[in-house]
Amino acid sequence: MSTAVAEKKTTLRDGAFGHATALSCRECGHQTALGPFYACPECFGPLEIAYDFPQVTREEIEAGPRNIWRYKALLPVPSDIESSPNTEPGFTRLLPAANLARELGLTRLWVKDDSTNPTNSFKDRVVACALSAARELGATVFACPSTGNLANAVAAAGARAGMKTVVFIPSNLEQPKQVNSAVFTEQLVAVDGTYDDVNKLAQEIAAEEDGWAFVNVNVRPYYAEGSKTLGYEIAEQLGWRLPDQVVIPVASGSQLTKVDKAFRELITLGLVEDKPYKVYGAQAAGCSPVSTAFKTDAPAIRPVKPDTIAKSLAIGNPADGIYVLDVCHRTGGAVEDVTDDEVRAAIVLLARTEGIFTETAGGTTVGVLKKLVETRQLDPELETVVINTGHGLKTLDAVAGSVGPAATIAPTYDAFVATGLA
Amino acid sequence: MSTAVAEKKTTLRDGAFGHATALSCRECGHQTALGPFYACPECFGPLEIAYDFPQVTREEIEAGPRNIWRYKALLPVPSDIESSPNTEPGFTRLLPAANLARELGLTRLWVKDDSTNPTNSFKDRVVACALSAARELGATVFACPSTGNLANAVAAAGARAGMKTVVFIPSNLEQPKQVNSAVFTEQLVAVDGTYDDVNKLAQEIAAEEDGWAFVNVNVRPYYAEGSKTLGYEIAEQLGWRLPDQVVIPVASGSQLTKVDKAFRELITLGLVEDKPYKVYGAQAAGCSPVSTAFKTDAPAIRPVKPDTIAKSLAIGNPADGIYVLDVCHRTGGAVEDVTDDEVRAAIVLLARTEGIFTETAGGTTVGVLKKLVETRQLDPELETVVINTGHGLKTLDAVAGSVGPAATIAPTYDAFVATGLA
Ligand SMILES: Cc1ncc(COP(=O)(O)O)c(C=O)c1O
Ligand SMILES: Cc1ncc(COP(=O)(O)O)c(C=O)c1O
Ligand SMILES: [Zn+2]
Ligand SMILES: [Zn+2]
Repeated sequence: MSTAVAEKKTTLRDGAFGHATALSCRECGHQTALGPFYACPECFGPLEIAYDFPQVTREEIEAGPRNIWRYKALLPVPSDIESSPNTEPGFTRLLPAANLARELGLTRLWVKDDSTNPTNSFKDRVVACALSAARELGATVFACPSTGNLANAVAAAGARAGMKTVVFIPSNLEQPKQVNSAVFTEQLVAVDGTYDDVNKLAQEIAAEEDGWAFVNVNVRPYYAEGSKTLGYEIAEQLGWRLPDQVVIPVASGSQLTKVDKAFRELITLGLVEDKPYKVYGAQAAGCSPVSTAFKTDAPAIRPVKPDTIAKSLAIGNPADGIYVLDVCHRTGGAVEDVTDDEVRAAIVLLARTEGIFTETAGGTTVGVLKKLVETRQLDPELETVVINTGHGLKTLDAVAGSVGPAATIAPTYDAFVATGLA
Repeated sequence: MSTAVAEKKTTLRDGAFGHATALSCRECGHQTALGPFYACPECFGPLEIAYDFPQVTREEIEAGPRNIWRYKALLPVPSDIESSPNTEPGFTRLLPAANLARELGLTRLWVKDDSTNPTNSFKDRVVACALSAARELGATVFACPSTGNLANAVAAAGARAGMKTVVFIPSNLEQPKQVNSAVFTEQLVAVDGTYDDVNKLAQEIAAEEDGWAFVNVNVRPYYAEGSKTLGYEIAEQLGWRLPDQVVIPVASGSQLTKVDKAFRELITLGLVEDKPYKVYGAQAAGCSPVSTAFKTDAPAIRPVKPDTIAKSLAIGNPADGIYVLDVCHRTGGAVEDVTDDEVRAAIVLLARTEGIFTETAGGTTVGVLKKLVETRQLDPELETVVINTGHGLKTLDAVAGSVGPAATIAPTYDAFVATGLA
């Protein structure tokens, strides 16, 4: 994409990226002009969006659309973003979870439920921001490597936008996630390898091909900002307040760092009161490079080969893992992991207590919440938010073996009475 | 339930059913006091809620919660309904569908997308109203016979409310819908028979057992009102306007009649301008008793034995079929049906044009929309809304055979180039 967009750069329209001013290196602070860049030209560190935020009021936000675009002033998108074809993600339910709280011994618990997003995961948020960037940068192909949810979100958003859309998935991906991409695009490519292999291939293609916007590769800085909206919404839905504790799943680690960034921005902008909060990361034991680094106080993340049912979190070499450690250390949180059996049990626990059917990523997060309470790493008296990022219908096999009909009967009252359910 | 609630009736709290005043017979107009009744004591006709509506303003509604309870003044629920545990359904996306419109030759088309409801179908709306009624009537068991989506919604809402919940499904139901109920409740009962058999069994149990609230049987009048919120939302999201034409799937026929009722109420209340609108019903050819009656101008619905992939619409003996005919005749609409192949094609069409993955019910509705345009029964120049009531992840098998990866490759750039996608 680099060539195509180097040409395009001069023709970027005014306000193409809203109040974003530059790409800023997370490692050395060097600033680069806005464009299809994701690595610092000085030190190869990851780039992040820098802004010159305007004065934004709660009232302005509340008067906006009932989706992530209500926060458009805080995102790298043009001011007319809501009128271009997009899936209108976000502003999902923040549900009080009294039953689950009682079960876990917590005083005050909320579930931020992103399973009701357009393609049933938080990925619709980031993809909407990436789509805007791809459009503004003049990309001709919208693409991604994905563990599944991202593929669903990219394929759906690309279809709605009428862009050529190509998605790359590991060939061993859960069938629901495959169909849920293939239904949107003919250009679904299965790759024999792990997610990390697929990701490497995408990087090669991005370097070789003109006009390809890989949402989580060469437009990653724009894409990643979408996760901030989870943090904004939690605060707004709590009545413009920050929670005391928040538990977030970690794959690449991007979402966790962006929720933290959102909270800090809201404080800086005076939209919420300044107060301490703790951020916790959740991983599956079968792919826990960040949790392992946290527990062993390691200075770096050691990549692993994933082996877990939580396929959407199965990134063995997480790009933002090191920043997750920073956030969790700075805020006084932690990173924990749970076994696949604990993931399964947590899926059923959340369903039976709160009526929410989550996928393995959510099982991981709720399982970690439980473990954090049990190990006293999280204060049960403080207000806690747990983020459910995906939908159980995409990972049916995780629980299909353990739940089912209590009985199969003939259609007669006597047969019903015999079940003992009367 | 009759005995238990006959006792309870005197202890109904003030405002238990909001501004509802009585149960009114749809056939003879006889009024019955509010209670767990669904058939007229005079003529056995179906009962419907009668109200004495207060003056309601657009501003009051807009200031309400971002779910169906913003319309609580128009529903048979108490004024504090939003604070009792519920799934907070509704206020789903109304998406402009320019690509699908172009494909079908329509000028102005919207998709009302209920696949993003808490359990991914419109059933969360009706179940939330039924749950409120069950609570107010002092029921001890929350139950339903279901073609799948209703089971999902009842099981989830019951779990969240902490009520004993028992759901009855045909044993041949799609596996995703089975798991999506079983994950919420241990009391899932599979019945060897059609939906109509399951429904008959539920009626027997409701008659025999005390305290059982079958959402679509003995609390059906309250339950059915929930579908009105689809109509309210469409009007509010269009900017307090009615569309010219609306296409709605028909199983029992309840939803269609309630959307029409909602439109008429909004006109009466002065919340939208009075104007003509046409209501269209959609069925699958393999279960089209209402469509057949419409086309043959029959005075009654002749029950059929369903044979279609659109299982959620497979009600062979639809309780409200006759009222669907009334609405479609009165408004100048029609009832149409499409084959299973047309259903499958419409699922893919909606996905590829608008990024929405619908279930077979939505495939039926979009397929019927297409057919209505092609047969000139619907005016392509008029503003049209099509309702997507469910999610494709629940009926994966419908399309799993026809969509899939374009290629499976090794994780190398050369293998990618060989696909021809570069
Ligand atoms: C359902 C779900 N939750 C959480 C994550 C983690 O996201 P991140 O890579 O930002 O850490 C993913 C990533 O794919 C996901 O699919
Ligand atoms: C997805 C879906 N759409 C539409 C309907 C039709 O509803 P009604 O019985 O109100 O006609 C159903 C009923 O089960 C359904 O599950
Ligand atoms: Zn740098
Ligand atoms: Zn009567």
